[in-house]
Amino acid sequence: MIRKILLLPGDGIGPEISLQASRLLAACQEAGLDIAVEEALVGGAAYDAHLDPLPPETLQKAKDADAILLGAVGGPKWDTLEDLSKRPEKGLLGLRKHLGLFGNLRPAILYPQLAEASSLKPEIVSGLDIMIVRELTGGIYFGQPRGIEMRDGERVGFNTYVYSESEIERIGRVAFKMARKRGKKLCSVDKANVLEVTILWREVMNRLASEYPDVELSHMYVDNAAMQLVRAPKQFDVIVTGNMFGDILSDAAAMLTGSIGMLPSASLNESGQGMYEPCHGSAPDIAGKNVANPLAMMLSVAMMLRYSLSEPALAERIEAAVGQVLDGGLRTADIASEGMRTVSTDAMGDAVLAAF
Amino acid sequence: MIRKILLLPGDGIGPEISLQASRLLAACQEAGLDIAVEEALVGGAAYDAHLDPLPPETLQKAKDADAILLGAVGGPKWDTLEDLSKRPEKGLLGLRKHLGLFGNLRPAILYPQLAEASSLKPEIVSGLDIMIVRELTGGIYFGQPRGIEMRDGERVGFNTYVYSESEIERIGRVAFKMARKRGKKLCSVDKANVLEVTILWREVMNRLASEYPDVELSHMYVDNAAMQLVRAPKQFDVIVTGNMFGDILSDAAAMLTGSIGMLPSASLNESGQGMYEPCHGSAPDIAGKNVANPLAMMLSVAMMLRYSLSEPALAERIEAAVGQVLDGGLRTADIASEGMRTVSTDAMGDAVLAAF
Ligand SMILES: CC(C)[C@H](C(=O)O)[C@@H](O)C(=O)O
Ligand SMILES: CC(C)[C@H](C(=O)O)[C@@H](O)C(=O)O
Repeated sequence: MIRKILLLPGDGIGPEISLQASRLLAACQEAGLDIAVEEALVGGAAYDAHLDPLPPETLQKAKDADAILLGAVGGPKWDTLEDLSKRPEKGLLGLRKHLGLFGNLRPAILYPQLAEASSLKPEIVSGLDIMIVRELTGGIYFGQPRGIEMRDGERVGFNTYVYSESEIERIGRVAFKMARKRGKKLCSVDKANVLEVTILWREVMNRLASEYPDVELSHMYVDNAAMQLVRAPKQFDVIVTGNMFGDILSDAAAMLTGSIGMLPSASLNESGQGMYEPCHGSAPDIAGKNVANPLAMMLSVAMMLRYSLSEPALAERIEAAVGQVLDGGLRTADIASEGMRTVSTDAMGDAVLAAF
Repeated sequence: MIRKILLLPGDGIGPEISLQASRLLAACQEAGLDIAVEEALVGGAAYDAHLDPLPPETLQKAKDADAILLGAVGGPKWDTLEDLSKRPEKGLLGLRKHLGLFGNLRPAILYPQLAEASSLKPEIVSGLDIMIVRELTGGIYFGQPRGIEMRDGERVGFNTYVYSESEIERIGRVAFKMARKRGKKLCSVDKANVLEVTILWREVMNRLASEYPDVELSHMYVDNAAMQLVRAPKQFDVIVTGNMFGDILSDAAAMLTGSIGMLPSASLNESGQGMYEPCHGSAPDIAGKNVANPLAMMLSVAMMLRYSLSEPALAERIEAAVGQVLDGGLRTADIASEGMRTVSTDAMGDAVLAAF
C-alpha cells in the first residue's frame, strides 16, 4: 500500500533543509519504500502566494497524507502583520489544531560526538536523554475568549489558559506509555500553587498514575523545572506538561544539548497520523546561505518512519548514517568545533546520503 | 525619623535565615540606623496558627511598614490543602497584591568566588550580571475569571492571562529606567506570535522606547529567551516580562549562577515601599537543620537599605562583608566546593556579622 507524505518546506531555512529531506525520501524509495511525496505551501510562503498561511488546499493535502514533514515557519518579514490570523505561525497552529495533533514528542538527546557543543559542563550533560511530552492543541494557545479590547477607557489584552479533564487525560496517557517504554519515570510540570487549571492537571495525572503502577510519577512547579533543567537535567526521564510550559521547557532542554540543529520532533493525533519537524525554527538570519544544519530535518524523516510508517529498520539506517557522518568529523557551522570539518547544508546532505 | 521594618520569617528555612537577617538589622541599629523591627506570621505558619495564610493583623503591619523582609513560604505540609485560597503561597500573593508591589527586581549575578558552582562552562557565565524586571501584581496570577467548573459533563480548569496598557506601561518604565542605570540594553520577552495579550505588551514597550532613546530595546519570544539564557546569557542586560514568564525565566537565570542561595530580590510599589526576599524558596527538605545559606536573606537586607531606606553606605558594608567571608573560604553546603570550609547557617551569619 502506497503511503502519502506531504512535505511543507515553509520559511527561512525550511526550503534548504527540506531539500535534503526530500533527497533522503527518494533514497528510501530506491530502498523499496512505497511512498508518494507531495509538496505544499504553509506559513509565510503561503501568505505571500495566497494571503493565507494555511490555504485550504494545503490543509486538504495534509488531511489526506499519512504523514507530514514540516521545515519551519515565520520570520521578521511577517512579524509586523497587524492581523495575527495571517501570521505564518497560524499556519502551523492551524495544522496542529485541524489534524488534532495533540501529542508533541520533543526529545533532548546529547549526541556523544557533540558533547563539546553544550554550554553546560560535560559531567552535567553527558548521556542526557530526556523526552518532553507537550500538549499541543489546547491550553492558552487555543483558549477562548482572547483578544484586545477597550475596558474603562484603555486597551486590555487577554488570553485564556484552559484544559478539560479529557484533554489532560489524553496527553497523560501518551506520557505514561512513553515513560513505560523508557526509564519509567514521569515528571508532570504545572503551577498548581497558583493556577486552578493546573490543579486540575495535577489531579488528573495523579488519577492516571494508578493505571500505570510501574511508572513513578512526580510533580514539579514550572519555575523549579526550569531551574532543575539547568542544574541537573539528568534527573529527568519523561516530562509531561501543557502547551505553553512545554514550548518554553522543551526549547531550554533542547539547548542544553548545545545542538538544537540535531533534534527532530513529532506531533501525533489519536490515529497515529503525525507531523514531523525539527525543534529549531526558521533561522531567517542564515536562510538561503547553504549553511543551515539539515540533520534535525533528516532525523525527522527517521522519526516519521518509526512512528507513522512503522518502518523502524529504515529509521535506524538514517540514524546510523547520521552517526557515521558525525564520527567522520563533518559539522555544519552551528555545531562546528576545533579539529572538525565545517561543511555546507548540501555537503552534509550528501554525506548522510552516501552513508545511508 | 524612625523607620518600621516588618520581618516575616514564613516557612521551611525561612525562620533560620530570618534569624540571621534580624541579627544583621540589630548590627545596623548599633551602627546608628534608626529602625523599629517587628515580626509577624505569613504563609503556612500563619495558616497553622490562624487558618489564614495572610491574617488581617499581618497585612495591617505590612501596610504600616516602610519595608518588609520575607523569608520564604510553602511546603509539602500544605500542598494538599484543597482550598487554594488557604495555601501559603496566597499569603505571599496577597501581600504583593494588597501593597501594589508590581515591580519585581531579580538580579542574576555570578559571584566570582563561586564561579565553580555553576553547571555552565566558566567562559559562558563568568561576569554574568542580568537584571530581570518581572511584573508582579497582574497577568495570569491574578486574572479573572478563574476556577474549575463543569462544562459538557466534565470538569474544566481555566485561568485568564490579562494585562491593561497602564499595567504594561508602569512596569515598562521601571525596566527602561533600570536599563538606563546599567548597560542601556532592554530585552522585552513575550509570545506575541501566539498570544494577543503579549501583542499589546510589545506594542506598549515599543511606544515607551521613544521616551528612552538612550536605551536599546529588543524583543524576544519566551521560548527563545529560555534557550538564549542557556546558550549565551551574557547577551542580556535587563529583561522585562510578565508575571508568569518572569517566574520561569528568573529562576532559570538565577540557577545559571549556580548559587541561587546568594540572590536577593525586591518587589516595589509606586511609592517606593518594598518587600525584600531571597530568590530561593522555603527548601523544606533542609529546614531546621542549620545548613541553609543565609546570604540571600542577608543580601536582601542590603537591597532594602539601598532601595527603600536610602542607606547605600550600610548596604555596601553588608555586601563587602559577604564578599570578605566568601574570599575567606567559608561556604554553606549549597555552594560548597573543594578546598573551602563548609559551615552552618549560624556560623555563616557569625562570619558576616564579624566582617560587617
Ligand atoms: C512558531 C510557534 C508558534 C511554535 C510554538 O510556540 O508552538 C514554536 O515555537 C514551536 O515550539 O513549535
Ligand atoms: C511561591 C510562588 C507563588 C512564587 C511565584 O510563583 O511568584 C515564587 O515562585 C516566586 O517566584 O516568588
